[in-house]
Amino acid sequence: MKSGVKQSATFNAPSAAVAEARAAIRSGAWTSHTSGLARDHVQGNVVILPRSYAEDFLRYCQRNPKPCPLLAVSEPGDAMLATLGADIDIRSDVPRYRVWRRGELVDEPTDIAAQWRDDLVTFVIGCSFSFEQALLDAGLAMRHIDQNRNVAMYRTSIPTIAAGPFHGPMVVSMRPLRAAAAIRAIQVTSRFPDVHGAPVHLGDPALIGIKDLALPDYGDAVDVMRDELPVFWACGVTPQAAIAQARPEFCITHAPGAMLITDLLNHQLASF
Amino acid sequence: MKSGVKQSATFNAPSAAVAEARAAIRSGAWTSHTSGLARDHVQGNVVILPRSYAEDFLRYCQRNPKPCPLLAVSEPGDAMLATLGADIDIRSDVPRYRVWRRGELVDEPTDIAAQWRDDLVTFVIGCSFSFEQALLDAGLAMRHIDQNRNVAMYRTSIPTIAAGPFHGPMVVSMRPLRAAAAIRAIQVTSRFPDVHGAPVHLGDPALIGIKDLALPDYGDAVDVMRDELPVFWACGVTPQAAIAQARPEFCITHAPGAMLITDLLNHQLASF
Repeated sequence: MKSGVKQSATFNAPSAAVAEARAAIRSGAWTSHTSGLARDHVQGNVVILPRSYAEDFLRYCQRNPKPCPLLAVSEPGDAMLATLGADIDIRSDVPRYRVWRRGELVDEPTDIAAQWRDDLVTFVIGCSFSFEQALLDAGLAMRHIDQNRNVAMYRTSIPTIAAGPFHGPMVVSMRPLRAAAAIRAIQVTSRFPDVHGAPVHLGDPALIGIKDLALPDYGDAVDVMRDELPVFWACGVTPQAAIAQARPEFCITHAPGAMLITDLLNHQLASF
Repeated sequence: MKSGVKQSATFNAPSAAVAEARAAIRSGAWTSHTSGLARDHVQGNVVILPRSYAEDFLRYCQRNPKPCPLLAVSEPGDAMLATLGADIDIRSDVPRYRVWRRGELVDEPTDIAAQWRDDLVTFVIGCSFSFEQALLDAGLAMRHIDQNRNVAMYRTSIPTIAAGPFHGPMVVSMRPLRAAAAIRAIQVTSRFPDVHGAPVHLGDPALIGIKDLALPDYGDAVDVMRDELPVFWACGVTPQAAIAQARPEFCITHAPGAMLITDLLNHQLASF
């Protein structure tokens, strides 16, 4: 995930102020991963659906708050996201988009002004970057960050609760931690329910239907040492998997890792 | 631990008001375990030491707050514990005491008026009954309670921080829980730092020096099912083990399971 930071940057990526980072994204100067950009700021997964699907998808998120914590839902046709920042235009402020028709990827633009429609509703869903920052601040190291890899993600046997055409398995991300660190990580992430909150499982992967930790369904595998427990958090890939199942006539998402950067600060999401 | 409730009670034990329970204890009518008595009320482990040992023991507790969370420390010679209740006399309000001389058990009276000295300092240390009540209130079952057994306790390879003559291994209590229940239990007990707080370990017992879960050092073994993790909390037996090592010339403790019942309510100990 850090690899995005090494891209051809025209600004000092890790220390860039949020306005500077968003300006670089809006202008098309930055078209890659957002991990490490404006790192005190909340980033979000993006799903844009026609109004005819939006009500079902909203209920899907409400019923599955651990994998699909909603940070914002726009008015139909309104491209601005006022609750997330003073000047966020969803048509330009994501580094790279994916455009889907009936579940097929048809384009990967860096701007969606041409695709915008008056019936589109934007959903912004919390992302683990926020709780990872809280874990780092608490002195907890994460192997995928230390090894410059994407986090390992797995489809599980835990079903989500269906709403309309949206359904499917919960996808989880895994971070290996020693027991005392796992306990601390549970405490730290419990304070952040809007970005997946506490883990959903730890220990034996088979109990949630994961056959082999070395073969993640998304992201990169990392080693789990003998004195560590694999710790599993609900993951924002879950709604993307549900959309892949629902095959809506039209849908736009962010490209993997290329998130929307908001004006919110991560610590503002702490529930206590 | 529930067996104490089945003793020859002259009052309705589980529902007895705290004043009624304490009056039965003070009069000598109740001389057994206090598990299940006045269950909304905080109970405490009791250690009474001569002033010459008290300063070291106070530092020992301060340095090891997980196993030795201090609820109260008396003035030397003062038998009343005003911060724990309006009328608590430590000479009569514990169902059964143990009197120790140089680490040897010499008596098990139900009253210590005859042994009281002007130089004695009383320490009251939080007890897992309080967090177990919070776990039960959260809908989490505990096997030792369901099976009417004492909780399983183990000496570990985790050292406590020494103070004067007081030192020794941390003793832990173990409760088997499925992963989701273990995560919830970590959240619930984190709110109660004055009664041992969050677990200190979960998963592989060997990592904290426990060779065989079936052979606890104190209490009764319970089965750990294949889909469960053993979860380990710091235990109030730790200070008793440190006192056994220190062999003070004189010491009085409560008899195992026969705790001091205070006026404090368990929920008053919640930190948030």
